[in-house]
Amino acid sequence: MRTFGGFKSSDEFFYGEVRGDEVSVLAKPYWVDIEPTGEVLKLADVDVDLPAAPSKLIAVGLNYADHIAEMKRTPLGSPLIWFKAPSSLLRHNGTIEIAFPQHQTDFETELAAVIGATAKNVSSQSALDHVFGYTIGLDISDRDLQKSEKQFGRCKSFDTYTPVGPFVYADVDANDLSIELRHNGEIKQRARTSQMIYSVAQIVSFVSQSLTLASGDVVLTGTPSGVGPIRDGDELEAKIDNWPPLRNGVKNAR
Amino acid sequence: MRTFGGFKSSDEFFYGEVRGDEVSVLAKPYWVDIEPTGEVLKLADVDVDLPAAPSKLIAVGLNYADHIAEMKRTPLGSPLIWFKAPSSLLRHNGTIEIAFPQHQTDFETELAAVIGATAKNVSSQSALDHVFGYTIGLDISDRDLQKSEKQFGRCKSFDTYTPVGPFVYADVDANDLSIELRHNGEIKQRARTSQMIYSVAQIVSFVSQSLTLASGDVVLTGTPSGVGPIRDGDELEAKIDNWPPLRNGVKNAR
Repeated sequence: MRTFGGFKSSDEFFYGEVRGDEVSVLAKPYWVDIEPTGEVLKLADVDVDLPAAPSKLIAVGLNYADHIAEMKRTPLGSPLIWFKAPSSLLRHNGTIEIAFPQHQTDFETELAAVIGATAKNVSSQSALDHVFGYTIGLDISDRDLQKSEKQFGRCKSFDTYTPVGPFVYADVDANDLSIELRHNGEIKQRARTSQMIYSVAQIVSFVSQSLTLASGDVVLTGTPSGVGPIRDGDELEAKIDNWPPLRNGVKNAR
Repeated sequence: MRTFGGFKSSDEFFYGEVRGDEVSVLAKPYWVDIEPTGEVLKLADVDVDLPAAPSKLIAVGLNYADHIAEMKRTPLGSPLIWFKAPSSLLRHNGTIEIAFPQHQTDFETELAAVIGATAKNVSSQSALDHVFGYTIGLDISDRDLQKSEKQFGRCKSFDTYTPVGPFVYADVDANDLSIELRHNGEIKQRARTSQMIYSVAQIVSFVSQSLTLASGDVVLTGTPSGVGPIRDGDELEAKIDNWPPLRNGVKNAR
């Protein structure tokens, strides 16, 4: 397993590879090329920033049977995808800003895949060759707008509505990892990625039949049951396997 | 009125400003900074390429009363937006590739706005200060998937499903321009942008209340009535005002 991320040191952003308590600075985004500059910093001396800068942020819905049941939906027979605005991405330790505090705004915890090599019309068998690695993601969702507009784009794309991180892990088998979400310390979601209806390989293959997945694109793979509302002052902690958790606070935007 | 675009010369891409039959080469994308390199080429000697490279490609639905009627929909009381994959962009003279030839796949002709200065929570009154200019766009739509999936993202985001161009026009009043589409030479759509339910200023303001519009982002503003299906071998010609038309062929992808 190798660990990558985005970092800031003295307000300068860089991508790096984490090795123990150090970060090796990279010349380019890790999904483009792993090219160390030679500079090595202490992890404790840098700020963790966004680990991804995708040209497309793709979400998959209804991918855990128990979540389909709690949403009172029926499975479609193929993955349901939509696009979130990349401007909704939020770093680890960043604060989710609830756009409409009077609306029900839910957390959804998800395994997120970062694309490596460009994928177009790839089979499920070869799809994982196009996945660089994985991170933890939240798909924050305004349920009032989701119901009134029916479209899943805007209601999940307000600025800060897609926390991801803290790091991206390469050389990982993501087919059977624990995934959980603590809301103010209390476990609300707990599942295993093996419960996904469509595997990461099937999702990446399916999406690549529709459009060209570019290097660095991020695909959120759906949430298990237990989703629930967030409010000003809340703390979310999302965890996958034994990776360091993704932590985010919550406040009202206005 | 000033005219900008993306071009290729000897396989090298550049942004430029068109002046008569010449193109002034720019050092950066025109929406970032209009900085001429000093190099000037004959327009006839270069290829017209994509005039935009947006971080977000936003579409607006149901924005002409006659189109709402032909789609048998009801107005929502606010703009309906969703996200198209930027990978669906297609240049002038490029060929639309129908992903599912057995599905009904329609053309929709639209005025497209290119964002200039970053827009976040801007009012309708100041929204146009954040629009760099305008171009012609097509929102190609797989109606079978639109009906079965209900989501408007994937069905309109197959590679080549968003032709735009040929150029982007700055210093233009877009509130009352003619817009028309010829399908194999026959006029199918004909309207004026003054018929839009939500003006460009209202749309940009609305979107900017939801998320941060970045410089270079593209917003398609909805189609008038007359949408119809395309088939292998078709020719589309979309025209706004007296701008050079956007021309695209059609073929089956597989």
